[in-house]
Amino acid sequence: MLSSSKSYAYEMLLSELTWAVGEDYVQTGDSDKLGHSIDYYWVPEVWHDRGRQLTPPDFIIQPGSSQEVAAVLKIANNYSIPVTPWGGGSGSQGGALPIRGGIILDMKRMNRVLDIDTVSLSATVEVGINAQHLEWAIEKAGYSTMHFPASIACATLGGFIAHRGTGVLSTKYGKMEDMVMSLEVVTPQGEIINTLPVPRHASGPDLTQLFLGSEGTLGVVTKATIKIHPIPQSRKFHAFLFRTMHDAMLAGSRIMTSRLRPCVIRLYDEPETAKLVKRVLGIDKKGAYLVFGFDGQEKIVDLEMEEACDICSSFDHEDLGAEMGQTWWNNRYKFFYPPYMFHMPQAFGTLDTVATFANIENVYWAMKNVVEQNFPQATFIGHFSHWYEWGCMLYARFIIDNPPADANEAVALYNKIWDMAIRAAIKAGGVINEHHGVGLKLGRIMKDLYGPAFKILQDIKQTLDPNNIMNPGKMGFKG
Amino acid sequence: MLSSSKSYAYEMLLSELTWAVGEDYVQTGDSDKLGHSIDYYWVPEVWHDRGRQLTPPDFIIQPGSSQEVAAVLKIANNYSIPVTPWGGGSGSQGGALPIRGGIILDMKRMNRVLDIDTVSLSATVEVGINAQHLEWAIEKAGYSTMHFPASIACATLGGFIAHRGTGVLSTKYGKMEDMVMSLEVVTPQGEIINTLPVPRHASGPDLTQLFLGSEGTLGVVTKATIKIHPIPQSRKFHAFLFRTMHDAMLAGSRIMTSRLRPCVIRLYDEPETAKLVKRVLGIDKKGAYLVFGFDGQEKIVDLEMEEACDICSSFDHEDLGAEMGQTWWNNRYKFFYPPYMFHMPQAFGTLDTVATFANIENVYWAMKNVVEQNFPQATFIGHFSHWYEWGCMLYARFIIDNPPADANEAVALYNKIWDMAIRAAIKAGGVINEHHGVGLKLGRIMKDLYGPAFKILQDIKQTLDPNNIMNPGKMGFKG
Repeated sequence: MLSSSKSYAYEMLLSELTWAVGEDYVQTGDSDKLGHSIDYYWVPEVWHDRGRQLTPPDFIIQPGSSQEVAAVLKIANNYSIPVTPWGGGSGSQGGALPIRGGIILDMKRMNRVLDIDTVSLSATVEVGINAQHLEWAIEKAGYSTMHFPASIACATLGGFIAHRGTGVLSTKYGKMEDMVMSLEVVTPQGEIINTLPVPRHASGPDLTQLFLGSEGTLGVVTKATIKIHPIPQSRKFHAFLFRTMHDAMLAGSRIMTSRLRPCVIRLYDEPETAKLVKRVLGIDKKGAYLVFGFDGQEKIVDLEMEEACDICSSFDHEDLGAEMGQTWWNNRYKFFYPPYMFHMPQAFGTLDTVATFANIENVYWAMKNVVEQNFPQATFIGHFSHWYEWGCMLYARFIIDNPPADANEAVALYNKIWDMAIRAAIKAGGVINEHHGVGLKLGRIMKDLYGPAFKILQDIKQTLDPNNIMNPGKMGFKG
Repeated sequence: MLSSSKSYAYEMLLSELTWAVGEDYVQTGDSDKLGHSIDYYWVPEVWHDRGRQLTPPDFIIQPGSSQEVAAVLKIANNYSIPVTPWGGGSGSQGGALPIRGGIILDMKRMNRVLDIDTVSLSATVEVGINAQHLEWAIEKAGYSTMHFPASIACATLGGFIAHRGTGVLSTKYGKMEDMVMSLEVVTPQGEIINTLPVPRHASGPDLTQLFLGSEGTLGVVTKATIKIHPIPQSRKFHAFLFRTMHDAMLAGSRIMTSRLRPCVIRLYDEPETAKLVKRVLGIDKKGAYLVFGFDGQEKIVDLEMEEACDICSSFDHEDLGAEMGQTWWNNRYKFFYPPYMFHMPQAFGTLDTVATFANIENVYWAMKNVVEQNFPQATFIGHFSHWYEWGCMLYARFIIDNPPADANEAVALYNKIWDMAIRAAIKAGGVINEHHGVGLKLGRIMKDLYGPAFKILQDIKQTLDPNNIMNPGKMGFKG
């Protein structure tokens, strides 16, 4: 943070930034600063909720072009001032918080769809575009991005690229790293580069996959070419209830390892089936609820569905039919809105972890045990989303209805749960995490997660951003 | 190259290396050196063929463990001596040639299958294993790697990882970057690191994809966890003949953009259909030969096949039926063996290029025109293999039956064809290349291909390998 807005150094910098992007696109008002000091991470939320002071940015800059982004980064290097890119502000990991003050680079002005290639099925867009607006634009052309995360209404494409986001149909259509074909990036030193135009090649390391997931620490992604897909002729769902989560996991993993290709599988543990599936979907059953869907040519969908149902039927099950599967799809976003979503004053965290099928249940039990045994005031629930040929993601959550009133005590408790749960997950073979990102929340765990390999990331960060201006203090990099 | 094997500096180094790996695993004989001075790149082949001197390594080291690899790299750093990893020696780009002498690190002793995980369907192996041996080991466990490149009998897994190799079933099962889940790497400075255990996560940039394709310039890959797949119940093929390559391309691309998932599509241009399809497969037809296959559950395969045939039937075509498709599959390796493969004294090069469907035909014509117009002595043929949702790979070749007798003149002509053809391809939107790698052959083009982004690769190389010991002079990095 600049020491004072009253010094002339502040005015020197402000006038340079204003020259670079135009005076309409530099904000310094208190309410603008507040709106860019807090995201969907629980820690700044509770901090603000308890009347405590957040760390504001000094400037909110809204660049209109890659060239303007480059100009801002060059200025920031000259002044050694932090730059933190900002998309929808809907991140849950604190990745966009300006924890060292400086510049918030609000990317939402860069929201144009530049090209839709209906021969290769791709679209080139500025990444400040809201994900729902992007989907609407692609649908108007007769296609779909097939990226449907719960945050679609508020998040930007750039946000998803920053932290490798995943949508509900990822099991067939992939996550952000599968969807992106190529990137334009402004490097920390203000050079505009493009990664290779196609995502599969044999021309060296994959730079696209270096910037994907770098969360604004290695530069600013400004444009992306993404895949688009035809609207499938048919999309069908089916639900089963299993006596145990273990049986349901065996069924789900067998669907994947038999190389069927559902667009989605979701498996709720017994507590979440009893709690949320009942409350949101009105399905009042004891056991583990499993839903899956297929899409594509209807005749092929029907065969795949038949095959998947055969797999499920080989376990102790209740066939809930297509209707109770479709119900889930129709209500898939409902889980994330009031009154079903957790909210203040509750403390809650999503212990998003991904692992192989051999490890994923161990991860579940390791986290559940450590949370329930050490924090009796916490409820632990979980479901498994985003399935792969080799494993799946555990969307586990802890909820505390009445966390401490004192902000420091509340944050200390919150961090303690995280610290214990994620180390238990890593020990059981889990990778924290699958689609929420690292940000501020999980930066502390990067050294444990990567081991000696973290040095590689640190070296790359150091060489690409020698003045450490890009989103300092995130992802375990120094602040 | 060390200035002389007679100096005591040579003996100092040799004794350290011998201590590190044992005397049975350090070779310095002339015939060993010759065998590691030449690969499948045409330039050293013609050089040797014409009785000219190749650049030999000083030592061939056969490490038995990751720890031994680490020890060798630490020694090499102390002496600032080049280290070039070596697998099967079957590369076509000169990637494993010890062009600055020093150490050849022959990885083939590290060939153990360490673990087969039949729950998650993965295998962890030392990457010096021959690809065919690996496939046999996985098949014994009831699965398949689904990696069937023409070089399967001679190449190692490490070689495929080094340059992002692709096998014949890549259209469904992916190329090396899709097959690998995790890597163990010895960094240039001799640290043993592991990338994250799963290939999809939101925990930062993807280090696996940084080392994949780095061709030994960023370290030595020692172990890999790869996906394995169930043996499909059914695999079927079908062939069509189209009046023009353009019609065949429209049919092939529509199969992909309709999101059918063939395991293979191969489309031969009219000259290659007339020349090789006739000669190797005995199918004597005028036009463009297209073959595709599907595998999986038989009922689903039949439906997908029906759908793909419907697409093909909407163009001016001759249905060659399933048999002439199966013939191709049965003879798929035959193309690469005598008497069908090109060989000395012919000069030949595979202008492997990948592009989107919107660009791929332009790439074909740009390369064909530049070769045929400037080099009337050259024949240009091509087929399209390795199809993606967004584009495909052009396997174009030039063949000169009687290149100059003088080695320098022959190499000069060869390089001139490459220089003109690849720049024409890049200008038309192509990426050189899809699965052969960069090596020595294409290092010269990396700056043109990447533009300002190449600086990122150079910076990473510099920071991870400050003494520039790892495979110097390859991939466009300094020698």
